[in-house]
Amino acid sequence: MGSVARSRDNCLKSHSPQALEVDSMTFILFGATGDLAKRKIFPALYNLFLDKKLPSSFSIVGTGRSNLSDDAFQIYVEESVKTFSRRFSQGESKIKEFLKTVRYHKMDVTNSDGYDQLLHAIQEGEAELNIPENRLFYLSVAPEFVDVIASNINSGGLGSTKGWKRLIIEKPFGHDLQSAQVLNQKLTETFNEEEIYRIDHYLGKPMIQNLEALASANPILQALWNHHYVANVQITASETVGVEERAHYYDQSGAIRDMFQNHMLQMLMMTAMQLPKTLNIAKTRQQKIKIMKSLRPLQKEFIHSNVIRGQYEAGKIQNRSVIGYKDEPDINAASVNDTFIAVRVWIDHELWKGVPFYLRTGKRMSKKCTRIVIEFKHPLKDVYTDEEVIPNLLVVEISPNEGISLQLNSKNPLNDNKIEPIFINFSTNQKEVPEAYELLLFDALQGDSTFFAHWEEVELSWKWVQPILEVFNDERFPLHFYPAGTMGPAASNHLLEDDGFKWW
Amino acid sequence: MGSVARSRDNCLKSHSPQALEVDSMTFILFGATGDLAKRKIFPALYNLFLDKKLPSSFSIVGTGRSNLSDDAFQIYVEESVKTFSRRFSQGESKIKEFLKTVRYHKMDVTNSDGYDQLLHAIQEGEAELNIPENRLFYLSVAPEFVDVIASNINSGGLGSTKGWKRLIIEKPFGHDLQSAQVLNQKLTETFNEEEIYRIDHYLGKPMIQNLEALASANPILQALWNHHYVANVQITASETVGVEERAHYYDQSGAIRDMFQNHMLQMLMMTAMQLPKTLNIAKTRQQKIKIMKSLRPLQKEFIHSNVIRGQYEAGKIQNRSVIGYKDEPDINAASVNDTFIAVRVWIDHELWKGVPFYLRTGKRMSKKCTRIVIEFKHPLKDVYTDEEVIPNLLVVEISPNEGISLQLNSKNPLNDNKIEPIFINFSTNQKEVPEAYELLLFDALQGDSTFFAHWEEVELSWKWVQPILEVFNDERFPLHFYPAGTMGPAASNHLLEDDGFKWW
Repeated sequence: MGSVARSRDNCLKSHSPQALEVDSMTFILFGATGDLAKRKIFPALYNLFLDKKLPSSFSIVGTGRSNLSDDAFQIYVEESVKTFSRRFSQGESKIKEFLKTVRYHKMDVTNSDGYDQLLHAIQEGEAELNIPENRLFYLSVAPEFVDVIASNINSGGLGSTKGWKRLIIEKPFGHDLQSAQVLNQKLTETFNEEEIYRIDHYLGKPMIQNLEALASANPILQALWNHHYVANVQITASETVGVEERAHYYDQSGAIRDMFQNHMLQMLMMTAMQLPKTLNIAKTRQQKIKIMKSLRPLQKEFIHSNVIRGQYEAGKIQNRSVIGYKDEPDINAASVNDTFIAVRVWIDHELWKGVPFYLRTGKRMSKKCTRIVIEFKHPLKDVYTDEEVIPNLLVVEISPNEGISLQLNSKNPLNDNKIEPIFINFSTNQKEVPEAYELLLFDALQGDSTFFAHWEEVELSWKWVQPILEVFNDERFPLHFYPAGTMGPAASNHLLEDDGFKWW
Repeated sequence: MGSVARSRDNCLKSHSPQALEVDSMTFILFGATGDLAKRKIFPALYNLFLDKKLPSSFSIVGTGRSNLSDDAFQIYVEESVKTFSRRFSQGESKIKEFLKTVRYHKMDVTNSDGYDQLLHAIQEGEAELNIPENRLFYLSVAPEFVDVIASNINSGGLGSTKGWKRLIIEKPFGHDLQSAQVLNQKLTETFNEEEIYRIDHYLGKPMIQNLEALASANPILQALWNHHYVANVQITASETVGVEERAHYYDQSGAIRDMFQNHMLQMLMMTAMQLPKTLNIAKTRQQKIKIMKSLRPLQKEFIHSNVIRGQYEAGKIQNRSVIGYKDEPDINAASVNDTFIAVRVWIDHELWKGVPFYLRTGKRMSKKCTRIVIEFKHPLKDVYTDEEVIPNLLVVEISPNEGISLQLNSKNPLNDNKIEPIFINFSTNQKEVPEAYELLLFDALQGDSTFFAHWEEVELSWKWVQPILEVFNDERFPLHFYPAGTMGPAASNHLLEDDGFKWW
């Protein structure tokens, strides 16, 4: 059963492993020799296996273009787990057992002929394990292959199962509104919306998943989670890396497509969505979609005053000199691509009347950090003329550290009882926290799509972003340069200063 | 200028040592060879001296019955500082300079004849330092001498100064309503209310002084500091010690006089007082008095259901066997004295409609701890049927540790994202925090009586407590025994259980 039917009540229930029922299934992984599979998918599956979260009858079929035997592929998977699972050392003896579930099928995914053989291999496995035709197709492939594979799954009869079928896909989901719509049209010829799991790995980050619980399970936070108390919300996702190996893709996409349209807007939805007040519980996705529908459209004339695009120049990060974006390999020296974007968003929703949301993301910034800061109003600040009493902040650290902290003002007995900010905070033992892929894969195995991007969310995001894409195509739209190792162009500070705020 | 004229605005200003003006004065200490002087007063004065918080012209005249030379007394003071100041090692070379301010005057405080000579000694010092007749009289003496000394200060002409005069006195301030009124009447023959500084050392504890700043400088706490969000408030002051050397005094007083009428009700006032909403700032004391006036009177018929008295029996504290109260030296074996008291208080004030305040204090309890717990309402608890979602708590740790913590509910990614309580907390480096006496003495030196008990507060406290005292005199009123090393009698738990709560 898909998460659309999953109530918040259920969503907040504890999932003790004993209580779970994960159906027996075949996990068909396209792109099984690719980078994502190696770094994330196999380690995540292995960790789930250690936690007894895989069904007892479970079979993995990896497909790829390389010519590998099952044995060779198993060695490849073992190597992946060894290198990238934080828990390999805990279960070295377990790996052999895990590898028994893994087989390999060589194929060219663009050639429809190969799908018969794949179906045959899947059916063989199903017969061997005596399990129903429950098939999870994971497309860990370049975007241009996604629709092709979906079509071939359909025409090859792989999707006509007597059990259930599910499709997991990765970003990017289209390049703009139209291409996203076309892609979705193709996918829905084979899979209906409830069968499609669009991974936005930010939705798999534990602290993002915690947002709704934080706000809804804590009456004192819920009381404050609205425009009466919140002055503004700041969502930052900063990277220190540059464009790296993905130059071609990135130069066509920019921060707006690579980060903003998906991850940033998803974080916005998770932060801003309304929480239940009674047992008549609204569903997470409906609430997220409501937020997307309430985003005040950025008509072109307003984009100048609400959107800042930036591009990094040469600079220093942690004392290491790094080159500018235009000098990166495979980047056009005349590129006006955005490696940074900051946007002021208004939500026309009763909860957030008059509360600006500031979102920024960029590469080559001074630190790697994903964080949501809720700044509270300070109606009393006039009382403290002689003090610099700063606003109360609730800070949700998402990565690389996970934690919650609250900035309060308190007398400091060590400094003549002067009022000073204090941080009260909580952080988890980060090493032990499951990774996003582990949480998301487990949800998909269970058929729970709460923390996957629904088509309506994706489409509304593209719709909202589309005017910005068009303005960015106009080279006259200002491109602000910032030195690598800074927190972006000064213009992004002015966005907040206009409203009397600053980035925290 | 007394604190009555001090506005909250001022109260929240930072006190940087440079900005202070502490008048030159003579500090006349009665009971200079007593325990409190040795343990608290001299170390506090010395610490203030190190911080340059004493006026440049400052003279201490200690009085006592012992026959000591100035030199011998200085050695006594040095020994006190050495033993009890946390900062002696920081300023060993400074001690000689400090001791220069100290002189001794032998006298019998009950003999009015000796006051002429004391006046003479004070005047000599004033002439020597060429300072005005500013005189601070600190009565660190047994309660029966307080009114005598005040009278003699008056009749001996010590109080007829051309400068200002102040009186610092210690608890107990009376034994019941009537005796407190008589004592106050006596004192006000010599000192007016603005000149009297009644020490309640709980008001000198940094976290108690922090309460008003916490609530008023933090809009998010202020928003929550009322009956809309608070379910109940719990104030605990538990001691592990037994009756110790003060058996005679304690057996006449009990927890109700020794702790409840003063410290517990002062903490209640500090917690419950209304905070300013605009620049038209109400004074701390007025707000405290308003709370005392709003306490619902405990008519005798309600005392049974709202007051629990207890007495410790033999038991174990930290694996050490201790005797029961009745077996303590100098305690009457038939004593029905209360070594524990728990009270449910209702405040008929718009802020606290329907919010019970639970206060408890006792000796020989399982741990030494002074703490205020604010438990928030949990309107959503029905949503979480499968979870044990616990209430949000704001905990103010007052002693022996100082800190603020907030209990929230959060998903725990290490436990299948189950919702679990987390504590986010802040604590100060306790060793460096100034002691209550240091803060209070400094306030008195400056003429700031905000954190001293005003007569109206004291009188209202006695008035409120008086019916309980009378009921306790009736031996039929239940006395609940509790084993040493526990948190008091079970009956004190029932007080909360009646309302669906429990002690945290």
